[in-house]
Amino acid sequence: VPKVSEEHREERRRQVFAGARRAFARHGYEGATVTLLERETGLSRGAIFSYFPSKLDLFLALAEDDQRRLATVWLDDGFAGVIRHIAADPDWLAVYLDVPRMLRNDSELRTRWEAFNPDMQHRLEERFAGLQSLGAIRDDLPLAAIGHFLGVLIDGLAVQQAAGVPIDVEGTIELVRSALAPQ
Amino acid sequence: VPKVSEEHREERRRQVFAGARRAFARHGYEGATVTLLERETGLSRGAIFSYFPSKLDLFLALAEDDQRRLATVWLDDGFAGVIRHIAADPDWLAVYLDVPRMLRNDSELRTRWEAFNPDMQHRLEERFAGLQSLGAIRDDLPLAAIGHFLGVLIDGLAVQQAAGVPIDVEGTIELVRSALAPQ
Repeated sequence: VPKVSEEHREERRRQVFAGARRAFARHGYEGATVTLLERETGLSRGAIFSYFPSKLDLFLALAEDDQRRLATVWLDDGFAGVIRHIAADPDWLAVYLDVPRMLRNDSELRTRWEAFNPDMQHRLEERFAGLQSLGAIRDDLPLAAIGHFLGVLIDGLAVQQAAGVPIDVEGTIELVRSALAPQ
Repeated sequence: VPKVSEEHREERRRQVFAGARRAFARHGYEGATVTLLERETGLSRGAIFSYFPSKLDLFLALAEDDQRRLATVWLDDGFAGVIRHIAADPDWLAVYLDVPRMLRNDSELRTRWEAFNPDMQHRLEERFAGLQSLGAIRDDLPLAAIGHFLGVLIDGLAVQQAAGVPIDVEGTIELVRSALAPQ
């Protein structure tokens, strides 16, 4: 086996990621066979599975990457940024929307999913606790209720964007602002 | 061909509906083969397709039925009723959540979908226009923005419920109330 540089491995890993995203988006998790993954990545199954131990690990690595990017946008630009992010860039939504369906009957996978990106989760919780203590958002509801509500909105926006329904960005921002405003 | 009574036909139609719902929920639209539809309904393909011209028509009839029931709950019990309906009864959500994925790349299907249940859509729009003119909900945003927002919430609740995430019914009702309250 030839020794490959770290840089080369990183580039190959990105190539697997990009091709796998196309395959999962077009065919869903189950429909994206190893043959289709080979075709979309331009790499052999041996090469693909030297970067990810299984198709599930590859899929979850994509999903975790999407989740981290979403949390980064949220921390940098607030929830309005999240709404704009979903409205502007639909390519990742096919993978995102396959996750809940896969979690439904698999509690082990659900536990694994909930443990993703704990640092980001923690920073978001701190951010919202700070907004509450500053009086910028309501404090008559527990943070968990607000987090749940915003999570529901993200998933709903993802469904509509993936279905080709135009998102009313400014209207949604205004309605969320009112929902969270101090009462 | 023996002549069958209207009552018998209606009962058979319900049998097809119930079996097809199970098949679509377990295997998705593409995965629910005609053989699986036969197994779940306990009827031959000849019988099934005497009630619905195609698998797509059968699927859309289920989806239209779900949409009509959702609109009925909304008209009878308000949006709080819709939230409770989604939280209480997840069996129909697998079909509901397959629709946006199918609409994504099929503009003909999207047009057909948008023309579903126009009477219910019309009554809901009238209801919300009435709430605006009574001052019960805000009138600084167009009705379309409010309708879009509530549609996003419904889809997001459906995703989370289908994934097995417990829905915070009372928190969601309170946050929606604040979002729509006159400003």
